[in-house]
Amino acid sequence: MRKLAVVALGGNALVKEGQRGTIDEQEQNVYETCEILLELIKKNYNLIITHGNGPQVGNILMRNEAGYEVYKIEKMPLDICVADSQGGIGYMIERQMRNVLSKAGIHKNIITVVTQVLVDKNDTAFKNPSKPIGPFYIKEEAALLSNANGWEFKEDARKRGWRKVVASPKPIDILNKQAIETMAEHGIIVIAAGGGGIPVYRHENNYLEAIEAVVDKDLASALLAKDIKADEFYIITDVPAVFINYNKPEQKTLKNISLNEAKCYLSEDQFGSGSMEPKIEAAIDFIENGGKVAIITDTTGLYENNSGTRIYKN
Amino acid sequence: MRKLAVVALGGNALVKEGQRGTIDEQEQNVYETCEILLELIKKNYNLIITHGNGPQVGNILMRNEAGYEVYKIEKMPLDICVADSQGGIGYMIERQMRNVLSKAGIHKNIITVVTQVLVDKNDTAFKNPSKPIGPFYIKEEAALLSNANGWEFKEDARKRGWRKVVASPKPIDILNKQAIETMAEHGIIVIAAGGGGIPVYRHENNYLEAIEAVVDKDLASALLAKDIKADEFYIITDVPAVFINYNKPEQKTLKNISLNEAKCYLSEDQFGSGSMEPKIEAAIDFIENGGKVAIITDTTGLYENNSGTRIYKN
Repeated sequence: MRKLAVVALGGNALVKEGQRGTIDEQEQNVYETCEILLELIKKNYNLIITHGNGPQVGNILMRNEAGYEVYKIEKMPLDICVADSQGGIGYMIERQMRNVLSKAGIHKNIITVVTQVLVDKNDTAFKNPSKPIGPFYIKEEAALLSNANGWEFKEDARKRGWRKVVASPKPIDILNKQAIETMAEHGIIVIAAGGGGIPVYRHENNYLEAIEAVVDKDLASALLAKDIKADEFYIITDVPAVFINYNKPEQKTLKNISLNEAKCYLSEDQFGSGSMEPKIEAAIDFIENGGKVAIITDTTGLYENNSGTRIYKN
Repeated sequence: MRKLAVVALGGNALVKEGQRGTIDEQEQNVYETCEILLELIKKNYNLIITHGNGPQVGNILMRNEAGYEVYKIEKMPLDICVADSQGGIGYMIERQMRNVLSKAGIHKNIITVVTQVLVDKNDTAFKNPSKPIGPFYIKEEAALLSNANGWEFKEDARKRGWRKVVASPKPIDILNKQAIETMAEHGIIVIAAGGGGIPVYRHENNYLEAIEAVVDKDLASALLAKDIKADEFYIITDVPAVFINYNKPEQKTLKNISLNEAKCYLSEDQFGSGSMEPKIEAAIDFIENGGKVAIITDTTGLYENNSGTRIYKN
């Protein structure tokens, strides 16, 4: 039996800190990331790649506003914008992965799938929308839009203006997980769950309806990894490993830790409220549900066996 | 052995004549189309759905221009715009198909795949770009843009202005055809090759590179259908059947015709230079390469056994 790995690519696999995020930059970043993913393929893993979509869907949302402003083109709802971003980013990863495989002389099929993720309309996250999307507004514009549409706005932490916020509910189910599993079992490299998936909920008659929300990419990836019984789950981010006592004299890099240690550090609030906490939660969720090892690292950690932070059951 | 059908949905499966193309309209149209596709599923066909993307990618291109104008957001190249449209449209078809299946009490897996299609950089189509994309310009603007970027522009037949034109080369290969075939064989409904696919070509070192072009949706669908040895190929359009001697006293509806008849009518130029000719060419290509029957019809033709125009080998 070949091992199955789910690799969740963070934003900087696509757009690096300090870059404008031009298509040429993205193509180059993606190519380099795919060269590193090749190491897993050479080790005979079946591979599923998930990815973020922050800068891309941000731009799509801004173009959406601008298109209405300039040409009066109907605005797309958020679900379509997320689906669009899955198409564009997935295509880019797939094309560069095909090039990396071709250079290495390896023949593998690759497929990019558009992924819906089920959420609960009664998730408490909908009571406290927290995820900023779209353009920045001045306070008065934000108030007008809020009154007119019932949207919520929050001031940007870096004081760049006010932005609409939407809920980030927990993912409950990855709708195409069986098909993804079937493909991975056939040795097909699958690119899936981009941007955490397109959130949908079950309405009357069990119908799937769109809902204005975004799902955390690492939580959605962990859900996919555990449901399809992946062996290993990689969360690729911009730091080589996870720290505790961050920025204090006793700062320490976490290497190999147990599930219980991870839960303990989490309860001690060692990971702040930034982007590391949901990664640790995603890793814990995966290990608690049968996963063998969850690895949080930057791209270097993919081919060095003992780098990164590795969370095991015991 | 279950039969395999490829169904290519035309524009009006998504946006009907006279509609503005709001998301609500598109969702309703897609739902109705999926209800009709259900007939094939009930007859135990394995099913692959392809679709156009004209209005959607048109809007994405306009938003692209507007986003640069208003917010100076980097413009996406055409390949990314097409990939985005595959994501958004595929998602919409998939969600509504899930709802139609749920209502019918049928459990089937469905998957939407982003599709790249190989073209030849030396295709003669690149010498005569013919496919209009993006916004309309006045003649002087078009001339400026043409000088600045080397783009070609043509005046709109309905005199609404000048538009950039790109080539529409012949599709040579559907890059993810093996994965699509594997899924269809497993009974998974596959949504693929949206908008004719994202055109790419083989550059130095065999690398796949993007190229500014669009591929005819029916030709790409026919290529997919023949390569994966589909039994039946449906081209769904806005007329119930194909006519010869169109708008003349001897106008005649074509019912069941042979490959030779179809080729004969094509050589007589019976289908004009409009949108029907490439559909006939796509149907001929499919039958010449082993397909059993190609059907050109509107959605009604999907569940009435003898409606539409049916092209057989003999």
